[in-house]
Amino acid sequence: MENRHVLSILVRNQSGVLSRITGLFSRRGYNIDSLTVGVTEDPNLSRMTVCVHTDDETVVQIKNQVRKLYDVLKVEELSPSDAVIREIVMIKIKASSDDRAEVIGICDIFRANIVDVAPESLVAQITGDEAKLDAFVSMLEPFGIKEIVRTGLTALKRGPEELKNIKQ
Amino acid sequence: MENRHVLSILVRNQSGVLSRITGLFSRRGYNIDSLTVGVTEDPNLSRMTVCVHTDDETVVQIKNQVRKLYDVLKVEELSPSDAVIREIVMIKIKASSDDRAEVIGICDIFRANIVDVAPESLVAQITGDEAKLDAFVSMLEPFGIKEIVRTGLTALKRGPEELKNIKQ
Repeated sequence: MENRHVLSILVRNQSGVLSRITGLFSRRGYNIDSLTVGVTEDPNLSRMTVCVHTDDETVVQIKNQVRKLYDVLKVEELSPSDAVIREIVMIKIKASSDDRAEVIGICDIFRANIVDVAPESLVAQITGDEAKLDAFVSMLEPFGIKEIVRTGLTALKRGPEELKNIKQ
Repeated sequence: MENRHVLSILVRNQSGVLSRITGLFSRRGYNIDSLTVGVTEDPNLSRMTVCVHTDDETVVQIKNQVRKLYDVLKVEELSPSDAVIREIVMIKIKASSDDRAEVIGICDIFRANIVDVAPESLVAQITGDEAKLDAFVSMLEPFGIKEIVRTGLTALKRGPEELKNIKQ
């Protein structure tokens, strides 16, 4: 059965490592739902969060293959029950002066922030899990969604453990 | 002079496109500070936000080269003055019961949310621009930072314009 899997990958901050990892996913035909990468507490290390929809067996293969790549230090799968998983979504919504109050009302309910207003549109920013984001998008669809950007998921394990210290 | 440049790239949602783009950056030696990619309002399209530190001339070259890649539809540079640029950072901080009140006080000042608490650590989540995030991290350093993950930047142009409709 295919499920969402969230992989946290600690890598050396070298220009080739991102392309080696995305190349592996592409060659093997694993489709990436989202990918985020940024520097960490140590400027020599970057941390990637990759979200893939696949079955449990394939995800074990992916972990083993990624772990063998040069400049990859650690690979761990994070589950929603033991990790904090977040993303930002920004949505540009059609909102004439007639609709604006109603759109703002929906944003308030979902605790979304309005970060830009223009005469015929506005931009809302929301943080949270996938279910909340999907519900928010479906409430706004009747007004007309012009653009959506999302960071993709980032994740950090709950509790004191650190990815760099786990044994693999 | 080297500056931060934020590129917004609209691509067809095909498994090879991410690896073509990251391969181009790596071959040419352009170092990516952060990269985020996720699906958009149209399930056939993904949108990437790439942040690079480089000079103005190089960024023009990058835009031209990326635009020529297969499955790349649009490339636009976004500047802080005409775009909303955001990221999420999650930080795991050492916090014994003695320090916890002080750490929580700093989180309150920066409007960071505490998303996990363990006996000797907690996880704070913060959204905002780079300057605010850097100030927050430097305030927490004396307590001990265990881990940082960041989504990397995502960006959306202010006003009603849509990336998919701009002429290139």
